[in-house]
Amino acid sequence: MGKHIKIIVRVGIFLILTALSNISPIFSQSERDALYVKEIYNQTLLNGKCYDWLTVLSEDIGGRLAGSTEAEKAVNYTYDLMKTIGFEHITKQECAVKKWSRGNKEEVYIYREGEERVEIPALTLGNSVGTDGSEVLGEVIELRAIDSLEAFGEEMIRDKIVFFNRPMDPTQLRTFHAYGGAVDQRVHGAAQAVKFGAKAVLVRSLTTLQDDYPHTGVTVYEEDGKKIPTLAISTNAANNLSDLLSTQRVTVGVKSYAQNLGAGISYNVIGEITGSEKPEEIILVGGHLDSWDIGGGAHDDGAGCVHALQAIHTLLAMGYKPKHTIRCIMFMNEENGLAGGLKYAKESNDKNEFHLAAIESDAGGFTPRGFSCDAEADKFNVLYKALTKFNPILEAYDLRFVKGGSGADINPLKSQGGLLIGFRPDSQRYFDYHHSAKDRIEAVNERELKLGAAAISSLIYLIDKYGL
Amino acid sequence: MGKHIKIIVRVGIFLILTALSNISPIFSQSERDALYVKEIYNQTLLNGKCYDWLTVLSEDIGGRLAGSTEAEKAVNYTYDLMKTIGFEHITKQECAVKKWSRGNKEEVYIYREGEERVEIPALTLGNSVGTDGSEVLGEVIELRAIDSLEAFGEEMIRDKIVFFNRPMDPTQLRTFHAYGGAVDQRVHGAAQAVKFGAKAVLVRSLTTLQDDYPHTGVTVYEEDGKKIPTLAISTNAANNLSDLLSTQRVTVGVKSYAQNLGAGISYNVIGEITGSEKPEEIILVGGHLDSWDIGGGAHDDGAGCVHALQAIHTLLAMGYKPKHTIRCIMFMNEENGLAGGLKYAKESNDKNEFHLAAIESDAGGFTPRGFSCDAEADKFNVLYKALTKFNPILEAYDLRFVKGGSGADINPLKSQGGLLIGFRPDSQRYFDYHHSAKDRIEAVNERELKLGAAAISSLIYLIDKYGL
Repeated sequence: MGKHIKIIVRVGIFLILTALSNISPIFSQSERDALYVKEIYNQTLLNGKCYDWLTVLSEDIGGRLAGSTEAEKAVNYTYDLMKTIGFEHITKQECAVKKWSRGNKEEVYIYREGEERVEIPALTLGNSVGTDGSEVLGEVIELRAIDSLEAFGEEMIRDKIVFFNRPMDPTQLRTFHAYGGAVDQRVHGAAQAVKFGAKAVLVRSLTTLQDDYPHTGVTVYEEDGKKIPTLAISTNAANNLSDLLSTQRVTVGVKSYAQNLGAGISYNVIGEITGSEKPEEIILVGGHLDSWDIGGGAHDDGAGCVHALQAIHTLLAMGYKPKHTIRCIMFMNEENGLAGGLKYAKESNDKNEFHLAAIESDAGGFTPRGFSCDAEADKFNVLYKALTKFNPILEAYDLRFVKGGSGADINPLKSQGGLLIGFRPDSQRYFDYHHSAKDRIEAVNERELKLGAAAISSLIYLIDKYGL
Repeated sequence: MGKHIKIIVRVGIFLILTALSNISPIFSQSERDALYVKEIYNQTLLNGKCYDWLTVLSEDIGGRLAGSTEAEKAVNYTYDLMKTIGFEHITKQECAVKKWSRGNKEEVYIYREGEERVEIPALTLGNSVGTDGSEVLGEVIELRAIDSLEAFGEEMIRDKIVFFNRPMDPTQLRTFHAYGGAVDQRVHGAAQAVKFGAKAVLVRSLTTLQDDYPHTGVTVYEEDGKKIPTLAISTNAANNLSDLLSTQRVTVGVKSYAQNLGAGISYNVIGEITGSEKPEEIILVGGHLDSWDIGGGAHDDGAGCVHALQAIHTLLAMGYKPKHTIRCIMFMNEENGLAGGLKYAKESNDKNEFHLAAIESDAGGFTPRGFSCDAEADKFNVLYKALTKFNPILEAYDLRFVKGGSGADINPLKSQGGLLIGFRPDSQRYFDYHHSAKDRIEAVNERELKLGAAAISSLIYLIDKYGL
């Protein structure tokens, strides 16, 4: 589509940009920057490849759990892609990951006296132990919070299957806040419940939808603590189970074939362009290449990876020569250990590097709303204020800066004293898909994805040109 | 979901609001307004019915072309709904509509020498004449703009089928701007092409997607002008046809069973609550009840209708007593004549009414971005400035005011001198669905829809409380 439009727009903008770079100021600097950002958007919307790349990651490769064959394919695919895009130095940075496998499909059954058992939709949580295929049976006790374990006590919990059923708060405007208010059940529920003698843990899926799709995600055991099987069940199943429990005792049977497979090796993929004026100051842009095994990891975080790649692809296609060193990173193992982010920060610190700014996209491929900013406390205000000088240009694209977190993979860089930035797309639909079988390319709108890449590209351009 | 959360949140907020209304200012007025707006959001997200209502309009009733049985059902459904919601006065306001029917499915074929004819996805445009089921055959000439008719001239156009193929500009950030830049082909293409002897007109579908779905919409003939059949074809079919035309002559055959069925009667549905302090000043909120016949009119404009109904439902459920008269209007016939909007404005002007503010939602049920404001030129700046005093509260919900158009149905009220406001949801996916078979409830996200209603409800509350 738009063959003719493309030509007209590109020729027009080319003439304007050529004129701007050669002729003394007919336009003010800020007008020129606005035109440059407009051209970044045009280039991305007309010639952006990010949706095609994401289709490869999500559909041709598929779920990319760290240590898996798919993750290895994704490493090689993006490594090769970086060559095509035109990065000067491309490396694979080794990191040690823990390998985990779901094995055969897990099964969760509800048993009631005198009735056929009923299977409910479930997914073993990442890092959970399995049951070796045998069925763990137990009476269910429903809790709303980890604290309730203490309140009910070991007498009530021992040999039971604990069912954590606190929903994400639907009244939170930002769904990530609602997620933050409920995720402790999934991450720490099993580690705590086992101390009270629980046999297994079921967790209500973390989604804003009421449906039949279970959503996985990591669970973390305490070191040297006993490990019990932990599974997420769909929100419909959670409501049904809760309704049953309000009138009767319910026994649940859990089968899981999950296994921890020990240590493996994987890689961060890093593409670099050396800065022409301040090569020692780095501007990083990245996402995480690994995903959960089910679904295609399209929004989480294939979108973030292709945002980062597209952001640089566009600048290079426009002939932009960065003053600072630009690094584009596909981080490995964000979902199940953060090995990639930690390894990168450690090596960077060991080399006394300085990241002026690090931008992570790990909140999906939806319409951009802006950026969330973080830094060491003593540096934050100065850096944040510096950033807001770009408001007049970015507000025309409905982009706002807010204070908040950045991204899990770049957070370990905080001690370097630069600015950490999280790309902030609209969050309303993110948890419809997150960590579920639905996180596939069909859930991503090509225009929305490209607009995210253009927003990030524009911010990199402005920070590179004017510093912080 | 969220039974317990609902209770906790509602009791908590109830206690706070009760305290606020009885106790002397512990909180400042603006803090109290912020809390009230938060409660509007909570109520809407927890107890909002708008998604269920939209499911009835879009799925149980379906496409609701003015004058059709479905439109009549929608009139009765929303009339009854307004009773349930608790409006004081509910009326049906008669308006004369032109009835149009698509009849049996239209067919468009491409003929090439020595090959089987190929059918391509097409939809007759609303208001277009048909071919009485016979096939109109003609050689195709592709144009990019109406102006090109003049350039090619009658010699080239006579007895041809004109194919207008200018795409929506993908580089426009706001898709409505891109639509505005291409819609003339659909609305006026046939009326102009006929002057040069064209037999029929095909128009590239107005969508930002590249796919196989045709998108309909109105075409307008000149009074006493000759009428020729006019159909939209899918963007994939448009590209393929264009490719064929670059190497060979192509004949197309068009069959359409569309008919103009003369005059009919339909209704605006109007619910009112009389203001306690300024009953003579009206705050209007509405959408249009009619839609095209294909699809379910879910985003266009069932979403706008249920936004308006939900906005008032929430305020009434919270016990809010408006100072100004509130009118909620389901306009009829926006798509194919604007009879409802024109009739409403005429009667309102005849009664010397004054609409302090009129808010229309007719841009879909997506995540809210803000509101677009319009007024008579001599009053605009004062009214717009008054509105921006609500920024500190609304910006917390990522809502911004911009200058621009409002809505087709309320635009005729402009001469009254009040403020016209268009609800502005995110526009990136709107034209994926607009006027096509895909505009169904599955394309609407419940949270996004509710957030739209809450945004509108909050703005009504603030304008009612503080005026403009």
